[in-house]
Amino acid sequence: MAQERTAGLSLIYRLELKNSSHIFGLVAHHIGQENGDIIGVDVVHVDKDTVIRDINVSVFDREHGNRIQERLNAEDGIKVINVSDRTYLMHLGGKIEMRSKIAVRNRDELSRVYTPHVADICRTIAADPKQAFKLTIKKNTVAVVSDGTAVLGLGDIGPYGAMPVMEGKAMLFKQFANVDAFPICLDTKDTEEIIAHVKAIAPAFGGINLEDISSPRCFEIEARLKAELDIPVFHDDQHGTAVVLLAGLMNACKLVEKNLADLKICVVGIGAAGIAITKMLSLAGVKNIVGVDRAGIISRHEQYENKMWQWYAENTNPENVQGSLDDAITGADVFIGVSGPGVLKVEHLQKMAKDPIVFAMANPNPEIDPEVAAPYVRVMATGRSDYPNQINNLLCFPGIFKGALDCRASDINEAMKLAAANAIASVVSEDELSEQYVIPSVFNKKVVEAVRLAVIEAAYETGVARRRYRNYKDVK
Amino acid sequence: MAQERTAGLSLIYRLELKNSSHIFGLVAHHIGQENGDIIGVDVVHVDKDTVIRDINVSVFDREHGNRIQERLNAEDGIKVINVSDRTYLMHLGGKIEMRSKIAVRNRDELSRVYTPHVADICRTIAADPKQAFKLTIKKNTVAVVSDGTAVLGLGDIGPYGAMPVMEGKAMLFKQFANVDAFPICLDTKDTEEIIAHVKAIAPAFGGINLEDISSPRCFEIEARLKAELDIPVFHDDQHGTAVVLLAGLMNACKLVEKNLADLKICVVGIGAAGIAITKMLSLAGVKNIVGVDRAGIISRHEQYENKMWQWYAENTNPENVQGSLDDAITGADVFIGVSGPGVLKVEHLQKMAKDPIVFAMANPNPEIDPEVAAPYVRVMATGRSDYPNQINNLLCFPGIFKGALDCRASDINEAMKLAAANAIASVVSEDELSEQYVIPSVFNKKVVEAVRLAVIEAAYETGVARRRYRNYKDVK
Repeated sequence: MAQERTAGLSLIYRLELKNSSHIFGLVAHHIGQENGDIIGVDVVHVDKDTVIRDINVSVFDREHGNRIQERLNAEDGIKVINVSDRTYLMHLGGKIEMRSKIAVRNRDELSRVYTPHVADICRTIAADPKQAFKLTIKKNTVAVVSDGTAVLGLGDIGPYGAMPVMEGKAMLFKQFANVDAFPICLDTKDTEEIIAHVKAIAPAFGGINLEDISSPRCFEIEARLKAELDIPVFHDDQHGTAVVLLAGLMNACKLVEKNLADLKICVVGIGAAGIAITKMLSLAGVKNIVGVDRAGIISRHEQYENKMWQWYAENTNPENVQGSLDDAITGADVFIGVSGPGVLKVEHLQKMAKDPIVFAMANPNPEIDPEVAAPYVRVMATGRSDYPNQINNLLCFPGIFKGALDCRASDINEAMKLAAANAIASVVSEDELSEQYVIPSVFNKKVVEAVRLAVIEAAYETGVARRRYRNYKDVK
Repeated sequence: MAQERTAGLSLIYRLELKNSSHIFGLVAHHIGQENGDIIGVDVVHVDKDTVIRDINVSVFDREHGNRIQERLNAEDGIKVINVSDRTYLMHLGGKIEMRSKIAVRNRDELSRVYTPHVADICRTIAADPKQAFKLTIKKNTVAVVSDGTAVLGLGDIGPYGAMPVMEGKAMLFKQFANVDAFPICLDTKDTEEIIAHVKAIAPAFGGINLEDISSPRCFEIEARLKAELDIPVFHDDQHGTAVVLLAGLMNACKLVEKNLADLKICVVGIGAAGIAITKMLSLAGVKNIVGVDRAGIISRHEQYENKMWQWYAENTNPENVQGSLDDAITGADVFIGVSGPGVLKVEHLQKMAKDPIVFAMANPNPEIDPEVAAPYVRVMATGRSDYPNQINNLLCFPGIFKGALDCRASDINEAMKLAAANAIASVVSEDELSEQYVIPSVFNKKVVEAVRLAVIEAAYETGVARRRYRNYKDVK
């Protein structure tokens, strides 16, 4: 299977060189001998004894880059201080910044945004804290909160390591939905402490996006914060994925002319994402969901120590079937994988009902190679950007939070998530709909606005919107 | 005494009006009868029964504005929904926003700032957390932390009410020193909880600016965070004021040709600010400081329940004098007030040594009216912007944090504060120095860079700078 392609690799070698006339020739010689292509040279610093230079070299891959580095380091008078690439350079100094919306050009303006006149605004809010939604950044600002315990596929890399992802998320919030987001990476893994910290910092924020917090702590943290805060709390890894998957499934069902209510769905991987997906599907009307994990099919024939599995046994699998994936997949209309590569075989696909729909979302490598699966499936979706039908949270979180903020929602509830899924699905018109296109691209400009409006409507209809309007369509 | 002048007052009345042809005439009539001047009219919303209009009216003062409001409200068919002014409008939606430093225009860029390639950066930082200073916003970002207990002169108005001040501070950090700052308003007043929350959120930040936290909790919170975090922690209300005051005093001493070491200084108001000022003055070489509070002169003849006063008694007042302000001021070269209006009388000034220097910093009204004091003092400074020699923290905090961030300081220590004071003082050249000009204007462009460089130099000399350079002057 094709690997997710590494974007064109040009490395920058920062070299400390002995300050002598022939040394640069030596550098060029070694790079040339290793088939590296020098595409640029800069001088960083010169003193009597040494020169520091940046040498920009086009290489085939990282291993090639490493060979060049070793060869340079082996030469007397050449020392590689640092090797960087474009991704590295994009991260220097962080990816986001704070900006003033208004300039402070003179003493009059200073007196309004700061002392003494800011006191009028402080007093207004102190007397009526809900004015904070109008007169502070709470109106449009989300905290992206992580403890760094489940970052991408990297696992528990801690709050410092998690920062680049949370900054990236903040960038996407801004670029896709003009939501201001700020990364809060917490230096603790304790459930109660995380809950306490998030509650304490909540005054500045209009919403909390929980991110990359490992299971099962993520459930308790989200549930408690939803109950104890009066602003929306949304664990994107669970619900973002579930919303986007449902959108894709809705469109796939149109293609194969099946109803959600009639589907038999097999879900493999009953962790946080699998459970969130199952709840979302049930909410949308799916009745027959069978879950499979390492213990086989989750059924009421067993008692599970794992609380999530016990919940799952009690709330899915209406026919209470037992067995393995082989049994669960037999006659299934839909396979949903949030597990690992290689879980799904061609033999499984051959046992599915007519027009198999496969969501193989393990990252970076799906449960089955899409090229291997192709002859046996009608619709296939993955988490990858290099195949059609990418299930990407980015289709959900910017619009769902923008909608919630714009109507001052106290919660992102089930109706709002369902509305978001419908809105995402609706962006693909009937004319456009095909096996290769059941879900819009993340760069489709219609998605965020469609989601935002649908979410606002659902928020008003379910009574969680707190901004008063004659007509919610006036919300902007 | 002149009040700090209210900036030109034009109010916007948002009115809900019965939708009838004569109603606007009635509005104009009532405003005209009250001598209000209509300067603009907008229509906000129209439906069958009502019209919502914004009427922009120039008024003499707030009371005048209130009279107009009452008159309008008394008329049938007119309802005042809201009255706003320019300060209010500047705060709508908050004053700061988050921005991406780089655009995400296509899938290649998305793959670098977010999954999958961001994982390389995450791994680099996870393996070596100090890389966070290079590859995340930690490099240039400060948390402005408050619990809202001592906001301006407003006292304990809570975390929501404090937000406009903290947003304003973040604006000033950005505009004056290009430091990214984010407001963290904590929903607790508990010392231990505040310490725990700040420690937990620290990974994203390169420094912590404590703000408007009431005494005595501010001492414990600052001391503990300084000890337990490896980034600078600075309570601006204490140290910012002390640094700027010292700068002004240094220049005043040049004028009157006295040495800091020979001064007798009387400090009135022994709270957080008074103590920070006293420590700063001692650090700068002042030997004879006598403190006065409600209990009179703080001396070793007494035992104080108030721990701060007990500390003060043990560390000041070398001659152990007793009595009241009358006694303390006799023969003093300098009066420093951080107390309240009316504390200082002409009779006091007459008892001072030759060339009296008075820092009357009570806000908004100084310890003595500068116009009353003028005939009896050589140099006078206040906290106000409408008299010469304003002692304003804004001269200190942007440059001191920028310097600390640029050299990755682990602390803002005494040497750095002293260096900042010297730098601020140095911006006023000997030619420019006069009784009316001992401290630069907050809009003087030289201040931040002078402070930044001085702070970096002091950080390297005292071993708290962690960024390695051949020469600290390369730090930029």
